[in-house]
Amino acid sequence: MPRAVSDGGENLNGADIGGSRASSHCVDSTGYRVSFPPKKSLLQEFSGSVKALFFAGDDPLRQYKEQPSWSKRVWLSLQNVFPVLEWGRHYTFGKFRGDFVAGLTIASLCIPQDIGYSKLAHLPPEIGLYGSFVPPLIYPLLGTSRDLAMGPMAVVSLMLGSLLQKEIDPKMHPLEYKRLAFTATFFAGVTQAALGFFRLGFIIEYLSHAAIIGFMGGAAIIIALQQLKGFLGIKNFTNNTDIVSVMKSIFKSAHHGWNWQTILIAASFLGFLMVTKYIGKKKKKLFWMSATAPLISVIVSTFFVYITRADKHGVAVVKNIEKGINPPSASLIYFSGPFMLKGFKIGVVVGLIALTEAIAVGRTFAGMKDYKLDGNKEMMALGTMNVVGSLTSCYIATGGFARSAVNCMAGCKTAASNIVMSMVVLLTLLFLTPLFKYTPNAILSSIIISAVLGLIDYKAAYHIWKVDKLDFLACLGAFLGVVFSSVDYGLLIAIAISIAKILLQATRPRTALLGNLPRTTVYRNIEQYPDVTTVPGVVIVQVDSAIYFTNSNYVKERILRLLEEEEERQRQQNCPQIEFLIVELSPVVDIDTSGIHALEELCRALVKCKIQLVLANPGPAVIQKLRSAKFIELIGEDKMCLTVGDAVKRFAPKAVDGV
Amino acid sequence: MPRAVSDGGENLNGADIGGSRASSHCVDSTGYRVSFPPKKSLLQEFSGSVKALFFAGDDPLRQYKEQPSWSKRVWLSLQNVFPVLEWGRHYTFGKFRGDFVAGLTIASLCIPQDIGYSKLAHLPPEIGLYGSFVPPLIYPLLGTSRDLAMGPMAVVSLMLGSLLQKEIDPKMHPLEYKRLAFTATFFAGVTQAALGFFRLGFIIEYLSHAAIIGFMGGAAIIIALQQLKGFLGIKNFTNNTDIVSVMKSIFKSAHHGWNWQTILIAASFLGFLMVTKYIGKKKKKLFWMSATAPLISVIVSTFFVYITRADKHGVAVVKNIEKGINPPSASLIYFSGPFMLKGFKIGVVVGLIALTEAIAVGRTFAGMKDYKLDGNKEMMALGTMNVVGSLTSCYIATGGFARSAVNCMAGCKTAASNIVMSMVVLLTLLFLTPLFKYTPNAILSSIIISAVLGLIDYKAAYHIWKVDKLDFLACLGAFLGVVFSSVDYGLLIAIAISIAKILLQATRPRTALLGNLPRTTVYRNIEQYPDVTTVPGVVIVQVDSAIYFTNSNYVKERILRLLEEEEERQRQQNCPQIEFLIVELSPVVDIDTSGIHALEELCRALVKCKIQLVLANPGPAVIQKLRSAKFIELIGEDKMCLTVGDAVKRFAPKAVDGV
Repeated sequence: MPRAVSDGGENLNGADIGGSRASSHCVDSTGYRVSFPPKKSLLQEFSGSVKALFFAGDDPLRQYKEQPSWSKRVWLSLQNVFPVLEWGRHYTFGKFRGDFVAGLTIASLCIPQDIGYSKLAHLPPEIGLYGSFVPPLIYPLLGTSRDLAMGPMAVVSLMLGSLLQKEIDPKMHPLEYKRLAFTATFFAGVTQAALGFFRLGFIIEYLSHAAIIGFMGGAAIIIALQQLKGFLGIKNFTNNTDIVSVMKSIFKSAHHGWNWQTILIAASFLGFLMVTKYIGKKKKKLFWMSATAPLISVIVSTFFVYITRADKHGVAVVKNIEKGINPPSASLIYFSGPFMLKGFKIGVVVGLIALTEAIAVGRTFAGMKDYKLDGNKEMMALGTMNVVGSLTSCYIATGGFARSAVNCMAGCKTAASNIVMSMVVLLTLLFLTPLFKYTPNAILSSIIISAVLGLIDYKAAYHIWKVDKLDFLACLGAFLGVVFSSVDYGLLIAIAISIAKILLQATRPRTALLGNLPRTTVYRNIEQYPDVTTVPGVVIVQVDSAIYFTNSNYVKERILRLLEEEEERQRQQNCPQIEFLIVELSPVVDIDTSGIHALEELCRALVKCKIQLVLANPGPAVIQKLRSAKFIELIGEDKMCLTVGDAVKRFAPKAVDGV
Repeated sequence: MPRAVSDGGENLNGADIGGSRASSHCVDSTGYRVSFPPKKSLLQEFSGSVKALFFAGDDPLRQYKEQPSWSKRVWLSLQNVFPVLEWGRHYTFGKFRGDFVAGLTIASLCIPQDIGYSKLAHLPPEIGLYGSFVPPLIYPLLGTSRDLAMGPMAVVSLMLGSLLQKEIDPKMHPLEYKRLAFTATFFAGVTQAALGFFRLGFIIEYLSHAAIIGFMGGAAIIIALQQLKGFLGIKNFTNNTDIVSVMKSIFKSAHHGWNWQTILIAASFLGFLMVTKYIGKKKKKLFWMSATAPLISVIVSTFFVYITRADKHGVAVVKNIEKGINPPSASLIYFSGPFMLKGFKIGVVVGLIALTEAIAVGRTFAGMKDYKLDGNKEMMALGTMNVVGSLTSCYIATGGFARSAVNCMAGCKTAASNIVMSMVVLLTLLFLTPLFKYTPNAILSSIIISAVLGLIDYKAAYHIWKVDKLDFLACLGAFLGVVFSSVDYGLLIAIAISIAKILLQATRPRTALLGNLPRTTVYRNIEQYPDVTTVPGVVIVQVDSAIYFTNSNYVKERILRLLEEEEERQRQQNCPQIEFLIVELSPVVDIDTSGIHALEELCRALVKCKIQLVLANPGPAVIQKLRSAKFIELIGEDKMCLTVGDAVKRFAPKAVDGV
């Protein structure tokens, strides 16, 4: 039941636009000619670009236009801002049961982790716990993921800590340090929310999957190395995060700085954690063992230290964790002065990393459970969460992979599991903090080491190596940058390599000779299809990229070179003189003024050797620009063909008589 | 006379690689299957990339391999380094006559210009003249252009001056300023030569044609405004180059700072220069009028000032120009200390601009006269020229457009016209400098204004606007940046916009539904071809870009959205249930791990709605990566089709029964 597509082209069919000058020439052998898309006004073009860039090509008001009544439109807007209004209506007891169990599970995991992560950020342990109380309360109201579990995250904590301590020494000026941390958190939240609000979420896409794998792997190693301080009981430890400084620091203290009691505790519990993790991975039903192992380790080791008073033998303990819920911290944020600017910069960088992690993790689980994650809403949710967090003594929280995976496996149904976790943390803050007094730091180190080792995804790295060497280079660059220099430097390397890759493709696109698959009208790359035959008297080339200023000269020279080589080869085979150069434009999705200029030069060079230029299948953007630049008049309208096959049929009919 | 192409694929035809698992499935309806290109080893892949990037895909040693004898190879190498050895052998008296006339013409143009340009760079007038003595002697030995005329250039002089004076005040510390200028020239030369030597010339391609038009136009306006100092006879003038500071400076001095005698001289000669320029443009035969007009103006005005002693009435004159040829300046260059670093930075920036200008101009004339310009040799020639220049008291010289155009129109045949010009400048330096004592500065300003106005190419800007709006934005950004801020800032804006444009295309590629052109097997964009009909039960989409990490999510979501819309539309027309989604991969020239990941997610999403994914015409890079990632096994080898037409025929044979 074919139908003629008429949308947007009512008054503008090809015949009208083609012009009357040569209209009879450009009719194709199949009866069709190369068509011009309906011309768009500047405003239409602009709004089209805006839609593509910010709304993925959708009409942002489509939903509203479909709704006739105002009250429904208001309700729709509210639902858009608070997705909880939508899923909350269908919330059932069955779902709550799932969320409750999952919430308890992630709470048991998060409490020891939070205390450890706050150490990575050089902040007091209670601030880590605060981060698992307020943010998980905010997120479910605004977020669209059902699996993300909010709270501090290892890499983000490390990054925040390492950037903050470049500005302020956390030991010398703990208050100023804390204030800068809240300032950074505030601006991280503002950045995240702004990206969502202005639909600029595509910015985080510039961090490629490969770069993230490398970055996370490097960060995991750095974090694990940092934990050797607690693991070995070293007192004087370097402030740098790079592997060289850390290893120096460790070996320097090997003779007199290590504490065997600490090592004993740390190593035995790390063993326990790794074994339970392994069991949890092998038998999905026993995954609760790996989820609760950290809390069990904390309880057992704390009890052990309390009994043996190992803290008097050099085993460092957590000591005091402040009791009570998050104090307000709005007054602590720097809203002026040089620290505001520094906080802003750190906030933007760390906020983007936190965002990238959460969106990547959220997308993974949304894909697994087949629901839709709205990237821009997620950004606003995470941003709001962190802004509120910064006003209530929390540092940057996000949805980390490990915690969300446990949440998902424990059977969470909606984001409400976050609220359950938050309540458990609330009870801990109110009543249980004194119990952590004798918790050895070593156990926290073990918990963090076992957690971050999961971030080293060597399988993914190997997969990337197999598939795409340049991607692997970005991955490796990020990894080595993080491990040997610093987290921000590694990040920069990864982004630079990723962008360089795109630019490289736009600078040196592949070019190829095409040949005919015998008995068909199909023309394909001679390197890919060894069966193809060349057409005597005609050279057919293909350019594998938009022709832009970065490659216009290269493309011109490559085409001339391919022409020259093919001419030489055909001459040796006593083929007739080359008369036509057909350029297959299917992969040339766009062209700019430099590109057209190069085509004009190509044309002039061809005229001198009495070869005519024929273009096959120019797309809508290309044909419009060629027309604006009057290039079509230059080569003649009959030189624009629908396909390479048609071009050959029209200009070298003898060569394809057999078809 | 078709032949089977066998290069590079001797042992590896598609059948062997396709694997035996499903070999009978993937045979196409025309008897062909999607073929895998011969697998390359890592080394081959790497050397291929290196060749493409640095040698435009050629074998750099090809020439040598063709030469059997060693003596010939040595001679070839020498010719490669000194192209003069090649064209010098065919040099005739006829050619010399052309070069001699052209050399005299450009000398008459360059002497007044050089004195003016050196003022733009805040350097003494003789240094400008030195720049037209030594560099034009070096270039002909190494360069491959026949038309480029070497010497100081307006925009480069302005840029050098404005960057240098940020570091050192030229009035307070003239010697240090001069030393820094020579240091910058040295490093500019080193940069240029290094780019050529390491074949990194593609770097200058990142400055698009559009950006150069805008940059040059802005620089011309800035230079013309700067000349108002001499034109109006203002004594206290701003050091800034932006239009706001300059206009303020001019109006502030309007009441008491302008000198009417100066204005009279300047305005009348500017009129003379413009009229001769207009005549030269209209009647090509009279172009010598415009070429010699500057020298005539200088002679007449100098004589006039000498007679009337107008210099005593406030008309500023050149005063003393040092007599004699270039003194050596190697000892003046900073080879250590902070000024070395500053000189290096300035040298790199200005050197790149000088290079871009020379290569663009050289390419234009090479295209006109149909000879080949070797970009990398040009860079080495310009670099060597500037290094030698920096050792002989010259500042950065390059091949400017105006001077080269005069050279070309005066009938130059080879680069030897530069040597003729150089000899005339030598005579001037040795004997004629005292004659410039009474030359009014105003006449130099008039000469520069009339010269730079030609750099404002509003026609090209309008053309860019017509063809490509984003290109125009880069052009406008560069223009406004230069005019309202500074030359380096404008440059930065231009490069940023140009690169952003490439990234944008890689972030939000066009996607389109395809339909069948009735009675053919051709499938085309429904927006471009209003005649196409859709195929019931099948949705065909096309993605207009390589699928990379920057767009993988967007592409996936766009495809799903197009599918949804088309499904809805077909349902309304009572078409059968959609069973196949065909993705036309012709424009998808490459894919990375993120892209494959997105395709996997797309596949999973489709499985849930019982739709099968079919890929049409995957290119060599794409099919190889899909195989490495085991994606082909995921969707089944029979889902890879040679063309969209074949895919429709195979999977929806009923729909196309008529064809």
